[in-house]
Amino acid sequence: MNILEMVRYPDTPAGRAFEAAVLFLILASIAVMSLETLPGLSANAIYLFGLLEISITLAFTLEYMLRVTAARDKRAYVLSFYGLVDLIAILPFYLFFESGLQASRIVRLFRLFRILKLVRYSNAMQVFGSALYRSKDQFVVFFFAMSFMLFVASYGIYQFEHEAQPEAFRSVFHCLWWAVETLTTVGYGDVYPVTAGGRFFASLVVLFGLAIVAAPAGIIASALTEVSRDDK
Amino acid sequence: MNILEMVRYPDTPAGRAFEAAVLFLILASIAVMSLETLPGLSANAIYLFGLLEISITLAFTLEYMLRVTAARDKRAYVLSFYGLVDLIAILPFYLFFESGLQASRIVRLFRLFRILKLVRYSNAMQVFGSALYRSKDQFVVFFFAMSFMLFVASYGIYQFEHEAQPEAFRSVFHCLWWAVETLTTVGYGDVYPVTAGGRFFASLVVLFGLAIVAAPAGIIASALTEVSRDDK
Amino acid sequence: MNILEMVRYPDTPAGRAFEAAVLFLILASIAVMSLETLPGLSANAIYLFGLLEISITLAFTLEYMLRVTAARDKRAYVLSFYGLVDLIAILPFYLFFESGLQASRIVRLFRLFRILKLVRYSNAMQVFGSALYRSKDQFVVFFFAMSFMLFVASYGIYQFEHEAQPEAFRSVFHCLWWAVETLTTVGYGDVYPVTAGGRFFASLVVLFGLAIVAAPAGIIASALTEVSRDDK
Amino acid sequence: MNILEMVRYPDTPAGRAFEAAVLFLILASIAVMSLETLPGLSANAIYLFGLLEISITLAFTLEYMLRVTAARDKRAYVLSFYGLVDLIAILPFYLFFESGLQASRIVRLFRLFRILKLVRYSNAMQVFGSALYRSKDQFVVFFFAMSFMLFVASYGIYQFEHEAQPEAFRSVFHCLWWAVETLTTVGYGDVYPVTAGGRFFASLVVLFGLAIVAAPAGIIASALTEVSRDDK
Repeated sequence: MNILEMVRYPDTPAGRAFEAAVLFLILASIAVMSLETLPGLSANAIYLFGLLEISITLAFTLEYMLRVTAARDKRAYVLSFYGLVDLIAILPFYLFFESGLQASRIVRLFRLFRILKLVRYSNAMQVFGSALYRSKDQFVVFFFAMSFMLFVASYGIYQFEHEAQPEAFRSVFHCLWWAVETLTTVGYGDVYPVTAGGRFFASLVVLFGLAIVAAPAGIIASALTEVSRDDK
Repeated sequence: MNILEMVRYPDTPAGRAFEAAVLFLILASIAVMSLETLPGLSANAIYLFGLLEISITLAFTLEYMLRVTAARDKRAYVLSFYGLVDLIAILPFYLFFESGLQASRIVRLFRLFRILKLVRYSNAMQVFGSALYRSKDQFVVFFFAMSFMLFVASYGIYQFEHEAQPEAFRSVFHCLWWAVETLTTVGYGDVYPVTAGGRFFASLVVLFGLAIVAAPAGIIASALTEVSRDDK
Repeated sequence: MNILEMVRYPDTPAGRAFEAAVLFLILASIAVMSLETLPGLSANAIYLFGLLEISITLAFTLEYMLRVTAARDKRAYVLSFYGLVDLIAILPFYLFFESGLQASRIVRLFRLFRILKLVRYSNAMQVFGSALYRSKDQFVVFFFAMSFMLFVASYGIYQFEHEAQPEAFRSVFHCLWWAVETLTTVGYGDVYPVTAGGRFFASLVVLFGLAIVAAPAGIIASALTEVSRDDK
Repeated sequence: MNILEMVRYPDTPAGRAFEAAVLFLILASIAVMSLETLPGLSANAIYLFGLLEISITLAFTLEYMLRVTAARDKRAYVLSFYGLVDLIAILPFYLFFESGLQASRIVRLFRLFRILKLVRYSNAMQVFGSALYRSKDQFVVFFFAMSFMLFVASYGIYQFEHEAQPEAFRSVFHCLWWAVETLTTVGYGDVYPVTAGGRFFASLVVLFGLAIVAAPAGIIASALTEVSRDDK
């Protein structure tokens, strides 16, 4: 069959055209996702973006069906990384179509998975994936260290600041937000210690804990560097 | 004796069950410590958390007594890292039980030591400990450099900003808070220089001192990476 | 011809004098660009700076003409990095001279290209250029990872915060500003999440994405280190 | 002479006592410098700190005179690093004693040089010095790159934001403060771009320039690590 061969062999002219079309759809989808959030859109524009959204989802559905049909080992494709990503990119649309939840936050967030469809086309994204995989052991160690640090910071600052600022430091869970924004050095300035004890504790935590919390991100980045070097 | 053997040999089925129970208690303790800070708890919930807190402390006491009894060299256990941590995790409860200081900040902060009981169960925490130990020489050098930098920044900014902002930059000790939050680049925005001289001084300090202050945390993180690599 | 030889051979005394004069002009230009922005300048000062600006541009034009005339392969010079920089440094002046756009933002921004004329005279700037060139492969990988991270952060935070703060998080494009200032840890505090969901999402993004966004800058810096080490 | 030998041979018991006394004086001086800034000091305390300040300076003067007398090559000592530091630590006191400028900012700032007297006693400080010396070539390259980046950021943001925020972005020189606090990611939030163009420009500058500005500090820190490793 002609169409299935087109899907099967991405190196033939027809296959390249198919992949280019899918890539275009993904980029179009990202554009629609962004543009439809612009404020002050006319009713026509909103209608158009809705139509584009449905069309793109239908096209992705068609792509998924083609890929399942074309796959020699259908089960393997469906359970592969690409198969799961292709499914998650369309599933929420059908699951919540009737319930009217289509516009809800969680369904919209699921659209972010469409970006993972780019992995097929971007060397950078594949490098990213294998970097994450390679560094998983170190990642676990640092993830624990980070969690430990964040809990110590949250629990400690709660004891010092809760009395002085009962609103901002309401519970250990609310203090986590402070711990994250402080230990990553973002420091918006919406919550910060004001008591002498709290400032002393915060200083200790940030002077010695800073690098621990930045470490998981650093591990990803350094694995990314390694993999991209090996690639060359 | 059966129970003591259970404590002595953590690799037997009974030993594994004992260790699992202790691990569960530590995690339960962390959960209680966090949950009891939630605002708007009912009287019943507060009562329940108090009861759980007492039960957990009693269970930790029982564990400590069992470990002392089971240890072949009791003195060695009591003075070991684990022995001290196990003791500190329960001691404040008994010391301040009658004085009603049970709910005071300092006693509550001592509960944080319970997290160190996790070291027994977490490879990551042991890695952390040996990383700290390994990098102690470098740590000392950078600790001095950091203290030096923080004092220079505090004393200098006091001279420039005290007159313009007597409240925020009240004394060299108050300026330390500014120095810490600036040189770690947290920058909440609660205190910052406004005079031309103060801004110039702050720029110099932050452009050249930034990495010095971040270094102790960086040393911990890099030692952590090394140890976790050797571990593999 | 004497003058053309002066331009051709920068190692002769005359050539050195010519290059010194050009270098002086560049520095004077930077000084004028900065000083003319000072508030409260007298009419005389404004007139003087305007005159200096025109003189410097004329001098740069003369330099360009001399270099073109002196070049053995005129075409090669005009299309070389230096030739293009020398042209861009003067072109906007002539293009917009009559239109009165001389004082417009975009024309003024073009003056920044004059800094690139410094490359001829500064070893550091050449090191910088070859560092950028050397690390271009890694740069591409990280540039994609960075764009990916920024889009995910912007789209996600929009879903969580748009309802609560419709002004600050107006569209995915407005959220990009939040994403950049958060993931680079600048954190001015002009926009930040206030909902529990938004804070949770922001924490995830910043804890794991931070190093990705800082990576392109890190690649430039590490290539710079490498090149400056090889130079020795 | 007994006293001169004490100064000359710091490894004898008398020499060790002398050095210990000087070290104590330096630490006392730092303590006085900090404590006298405390608000709400009584008249007695202010009088006491003034007396201590004068006594310490006299003691440092005595130390300087002893070291000059004890030195075999007096000229070499006076012009050495230690000789200059010892002199700068006392000179401003005598220069401004009569002029009543004793309490002025600049004279007080000069006291910071007393910290450099610690170099004699602290291995960490010597490591610091030789780290700075070793990395001076790289330092120069990055210092230029940093200056370049800061100027580009300041000039650019001025063009974009001056009209919208004439107060905060008054001139290129005022914008430097924004450039420093943004590119070091401190981000207090006292000045930040509000126009779309300014935010776009700021994003570009911070995404690609961040590591350049952090580099000089990073070079110091990495040289410090190297030297402290060699030391072992």
